[in-house]
Amino acid sequence: MAVCSAYTTQSLNSTCSISTPAKTHLGFHQKQVVFYRRSSKRGGSGSSSSPCVITCSAGDSQTVVIGLAADSGCGKSTFMRRLTSVFGGAAEPPKGGNPDSNTLISDMTTVICLDDYHSLDRTGRKEKGVTALDPRANDFDLMYEQVKAIKSGVAVDKPIYNHVTGLLDPPELIKPPKILVIEGLHPMFDERVRDLLDFSIYLDISNEVKFAWKIQRDLTLLKTLQRDMAERGHSLESIKASIEARKPDFDAYIDPQKKYADAVIEVLPTQLIPDDNEGKVLRVRLIMKEGVKHFSPVYLFDEGSTISWIPCGRKLTCSYPGIKFHYGPDTYFGNEVSILEMDGQFDRLDELIYVESHLSNISTKFYGEVTQQMLKHADFPGSNNGTGLFQTIVGLKIRDLYEQITSSKTAAPLEATKA
Amino acid sequence: MAVCSAYTTQSLNSTCSISTPAKTHLGFHQKQVVFYRRSSKRGGSGSSSSPCVITCSAGDSQTVVIGLAADSGCGKSTFMRRLTSVFGGAAEPPKGGNPDSNTLISDMTTVICLDDYHSLDRTGRKEKGVTALDPRANDFDLMYEQVKAIKSGVAVDKPIYNHVTGLLDPPELIKPPKILVIEGLHPMFDERVRDLLDFSIYLDISNEVKFAWKIQRDLTLLKTLQRDMAERGHSLESIKASIEARKPDFDAYIDPQKKYADAVIEVLPTQLIPDDNEGKVLRVRLIMKEGVKHFSPVYLFDEGSTISWIPCGRKLTCSYPGIKFHYGPDTYFGNEVSILEMDGQFDRLDELIYVESHLSNISTKFYGEVTQQMLKHADFPGSNNGTGLFQTIVGLKIRDLYEQITSSKTAAPLEATKA
Repeated sequence: MAVCSAYTTQSLNSTCSISTPAKTHLGFHQKQVVFYRRSSKRGGSGSSSSPCVITCSAGDSQTVVIGLAADSGCGKSTFMRRLTSVFGGAAEPPKGGNPDSNTLISDMTTVICLDDYHSLDRTGRKEKGVTALDPRANDFDLMYEQVKAIKSGVAVDKPIYNHVTGLLDPPELIKPPKILVIEGLHPMFDERVRDLLDFSIYLDISNEVKFAWKIQRDLTLLKTLQRDMAERGHSLESIKASIEARKPDFDAYIDPQKKYADAVIEVLPTQLIPDDNEGKVLRVRLIMKEGVKHFSPVYLFDEGSTISWIPCGRKLTCSYPGIKFHYGPDTYFGNEVSILEMDGQFDRLDELIYVESHLSNISTKFYGEVTQQMLKHADFPGSNNGTGLFQTIVGLKIRDLYEQITSSKTAAPLEATKA
Repeated sequence: MAVCSAYTTQSLNSTCSISTPAKTHLGFHQKQVVFYRRSSKRGGSGSSSSPCVITCSAGDSQTVVIGLAADSGCGKSTFMRRLTSVFGGAAEPPKGGNPDSNTLISDMTTVICLDDYHSLDRTGRKEKGVTALDPRANDFDLMYEQVKAIKSGVAVDKPIYNHVTGLLDPPELIKPPKILVIEGLHPMFDERVRDLLDFSIYLDISNEVKFAWKIQRDLTLLKTLQRDMAERGHSLESIKASIEARKPDFDAYIDPQKKYADAVIEVLPTQLIPDDNEGKVLRVRLIMKEGVKHFSPVYLFDEGSTISWIPCGRKLTCSYPGIKFHYGPDTYFGNEVSILEMDGQFDRLDELIYVESHLSNISTKFYGEVTQQMLKHADFPGSNNGTGLFQTIVGLKIRDLYEQITSSKTAAPLEATKA
């Protein structure tokens, strides 16, 4: 049975008045936490009372919480679609809810976007002169309380940041899933939120690749619009400028989170093509922290040694510029890590299965599961390179982590019975 | 039953008078070939008739013939001691024979030194102004006839070149062993001899390493003699000069043989220590020809791909400068080869067994056999680096080759019986 207590987010000991929330439901759900906000600047929710939290202690089930930090927007993330696919079932927005919801729900997982915890909407940010990257534009108290509530098995009414209008929409109900993924700019920024994470990932796209990707996207758009070359030149400048403008806040608030991550996926330009700046062929590094509970790093051939491997040769023929792997121990922000790197891209399925068969600790349930997952989503970006491969592998590692946590919880009472 | 025929080496169709050879025996042995020489310039043998050969056709047993080309002298070779050790039993000079014999005999193997086929002794070479490397100082007809005879199961009276006196001593009887190793300057020089080889090896010491080794040896000698520094400087010059003097003939007659070798062991300076010229730490490459019957190249982790491996890491700790392996396909004088390379040296046994456990196709009969062999001869030069490791592995590969040849011969009649 759940035991609930109410307090304001300002002072955990003060009392607060409680009213039913506005839109998404008509009363308290079992194991639910309701949050109200004081600020009248927040759009949409219609609440006017002081920020008030009801927490209820955990039932017998517990949600495993995964943090994914990434610079780009939410919801559309390929990584999340790969991750949820590993657990079977497609991830979809909540049924019958706000069509602009950023949430993705499947049988096992719920992915929420941390942009929903913006405390300032687009207008508010403009007025105060802060970016969405700035912690002052985000409500970490609410983020902490809601993630904590979900982790302990309690449903919450999570706000929605509408990326189309730039406004805060009325909240949506988030029931505790088996696995909660919190994805966005700041999953590891706040120490309290960070401590709730069972596993954390940082997606680190290098500036060169970000720039190349944005150019590709924008040039495609420009071609469609049949603009002239002069304007393309101008566009390159403005792309560079917009990336540069984001940089100070990115470096101050987003980038430092990577030191806390259990796994970092680094996306860099290839080293196989001299002076490549197309950003089509990528060198991707999976940096895995050592000593993380329920997580054993992937390795190539010989755990703990340093190896570089060009699989293309007598048994496997690859087209230019080929594929090169590297594996070895290293340190990353003072932590002991193992790094697996893939440079280049797959042309065909046999290259992928060949590579998979030589990797160890990938937490597959059957031979070729990585390849099967990659093939299933062959249309996703990065399916022929290290981004897709490592995202898929991280998905499998998270499934393994979830199963280990679950089995250790069911194993504990059995132990107690024996004693 | 052996069928014998007699002819001179000058003309295979001419007849020749036969007398019993001088010293080593008193009559024809069963399956024996007796060789006489015309030249009175040859020392020791005492024969005066024209060169005469008796060949007898093979019996049911056949000798496997291995060629080993190396620049340095014979007999004392560490490689040969490692090779014979793989077959069990120590190699010793023929009992009761010439104490200056270059031959080494064990239960399974007989190693003969090709210096014994010098047609010119030390004085003769000086008179004619040719080095021992020059084919004109060597009797390839006799070498061919005798190796061919032994291979077909017939004992021969092989001359002895006395390295102490520089003269040709009376011949010694060589009975056909299971494995005959012909070691010396020219095992692959003559096409007819080359065609008799079941497997051939070229030991390729780079000039830098030759020079460093010679300096070490000579400086040690100088230290013992308590010479002064000025003379050491002079010595360095003379060492360089003596290596340089050999070079034209070496390049013309010895070096070109490596293109015929089934396996080449290349000894190079380390790349782990920048600008190292001590020659203590070595980079050793085992170059293995593809498609050689009864010989499958050794590989590291993944056959046919390209791999570099630093085993030192979390599981294995090595002292400076560590150990680095490289493996991959390549071409060598137009032939497809696989190359296994080791740079650095072992400090302890656990490093060696760790490396052995990750190599494939090494033809061991039990886990750790390479390590056992290396430990058995820990006092041999190169036991802590790639020279010892690859010599031992080549020894195991030759044992495997021998067993395959033997079993295919015993299998053939069985097949015939079935049909």
